Amino acid sequence: MGEFDIIARHFAPLSQGEAGAFGLTDDAAVMSIDAGQQMVVTSDCLVAGVHFLANDPPETIARKVLGVNLSDLAAMGARSRAYTLATAWPTPVDESWIAGFAAGLKAAQADWQVTLIGGDTVGTDGPLILTVTAFGEVEEGAALTRAGAKPGDDLYVSGTLGDAALGLLSLSGELGALTGDHAAYLIDRYRCPQPRVTLGPQLQGLASSAIDISDGLIADLGHITGVSGVSATIETPNLPLSAAARRVVEENPDHLATVLTGGDDYELLFTAPPALRDDISALPAQTTRIGTINDKRDTTPITLLDADGSAHAMPRRRGYQHF
Amino acid sequence: MGEFDIIARHFAPLSQGEAGAFGLTDDAAVMSIDAGQQMVVTSDCLVAGVHFLANDPPETIARKVLGVNLSDLAAMGARSRAYTLATAWPTPVDESWIAGFAAGLKAAQADWQVTLIGGDTVGTDGPLILTVTAFGEVEEGAALTRAGAKPGDDLYVSGTLGDAALGLLSLSGELGALTGDHAAYLIDRYRCPQPRVTLGPQLQGLASSAIDISDGLIADLGHITGVSGVSATIETPNLPLSAAARRVVEENPDHLATVLTGGDDYELLFTAPPALRDDISALPAQTTRIGTINDKRDTTPITLLDADGSAHAMPRRRGYQHF
Repeated sequence: MGEFDIIARHFAPLSQGEAGAFGLTDDAAVMSIDAGQQMVVTSDCLVAGVHFLANDPPETIARKVLGVNLSDLAAMGARSRAYTLATAWPTPVDESWIAGFAAGLKAAQADWQVTLIGGDTVGTDGPLILTVTAFGEVEEGAALTRAGAKPGDDLYVSGTLGDAALGLLSLSGELGALTGDHAAYLIDRYRCPQPRVTLGPQLQGLASSAIDISDGLIADLGHITGVSGVSATIETPNLPLSAAARRVVEENPDHLATVLTGGDDYELLFTAPPALRDDISALPAQTTRIGTINDKRDTTPITLLDADGSAHAMPRRRGYQHF
Repeated sequence: MGEFDIIARHFAPLSQGEAGAFGLTDDAAVMSIDAGQQMVVTSDCLVAGVHFLANDPPETIARKVLGVNLSDLAAMGARSRAYTLATAWPTPVDESWIAGFAAGLKAAQADWQVTLIGGDTVGTDGPLILTVTAFGEVEEGAALTRAGAKPGDDLYVSGTLGDAALGLLSLSGELGALTGDHAAYLIDRYRCPQPRVTLGPQLQGLASSAIDISDGLIADLGHITGVSGVSATIETPNLPLSAAARRVVEENPDHLATVLTGGDDYELLFTAPPALRDDISALPAQTTRIGTINDKRDTTPITLLDADGSAHAMPRRRGYQHF
């Protein structure tokens, strides 16, 4: 089985419906962009043993590599459209594994309404490395960036925080007391990110800045405050936790640090003026106001407040360091 | 030195001039497409030890990973515009190597008029893996594909053939008799592909099909004949050879097989009706008519003819097999 067989058998079917993908038989793909729209482009590279566990199911690895990229598009307020996939497979290749991976992509494509339009397939004697480049569309000039947060803005997050990081701890056997359903929920949140592909475009015209939480709440909030030139306060009692995460933190309050700094949430962190609170509450997705944006000169870049208004110690871990 | 330092120090400067890249500080890049244009997208993944030698200079590796992608855009008739770069660096990272790599990208960007707009930077305990996704523009409906070759069309190639494959043999010490200048020329052609970024867009409206030669002349012609549903004849005496390659083949005629099957030429292989011969001769780039397209039923998929019109044996090697 060669490179072209793998592409024809497992990946070409994923390009159906996008004529400009030429069934993955040509040098490149051709995409049309509607008038008044801009193209949004992002690229994320996932390495076995770093971004996922080598023994994770291939279906969930597929969902993850696509999901983390669509999460970046959502953070720009863009609608997802298509993606390319470059894969370096450890040799000899395991075709049943590739089949499971392609099945995971197929299911994720249906959930998130995107199509494979190209890529590359090579062998490596190192770990599996997957690179997705994803394409979305946004109204001209309406893309959300990290740069627009203003003093006085509210700080929001979608969904719940810390589930993925706690799921990874559970997989590593570090949350032994956790019951089956709760553990399964957290593990699923680690393996299967749910990019906020619907919420992101709805934030156009509402959010003043946005980012998706991949490196952890504190680290990613640091990107907003740094680029926007502001500081921020988080009210830790307001952090949205799932039932499973709440159980873990109640049993061991040290895990609040995991919630604050753990990566892989793929929720949206965004800011908006207080005048828009009703508009944001009216959105179909769950969003929670967790703090405020302040003038840079008022405080340290990020302040954590406890229920009684006293300062909460800043946890040390701040996102994964690759080097 | 962390991931964000590397990006800020070495890669962010390469995004200057493209406002929608946000200095590589945001989740994604935003690109505008002119009215009446379509976006062309390609992605190629290069692995150390497979697509380049691990001890090749970082500057030439940079030029190669960008060049092979721009070559794919040229083969679609597209003008190159921008690219993303995802890198998996063997840890611990060698910053001086990365600096050389970024300098190579900077020089190549200036030569080929493209800008870095995004990507990802991760660590790996395997070989260096570089994935570029490149973006071009083409007039609506004018993209060249592999599908349009017709019986009676002429078959053309740009530049000269086999230089890169012979350069690799020279680096491996397999062309011992070659003199210094000739060897240096061939090695440069291996390390520094010259994608036909100017010729490609000029072939819009002339070529009936096109591909770039990355897997070798025979293998890539096989992609055109397969997708177009035709067969082809190559007149081997007409193959364009550089002075260095001619010298090698004269000394050892077996190396004609290297010219026919060796990869990494990154020349354009294209077809056009005989009525357009004058238009194609008038193009500024060197192009050579090397054969003809035939009806699929007339012959085997690809026939090689010697000077006396007799059949030339088909060499066995047909492009690199990754698996």
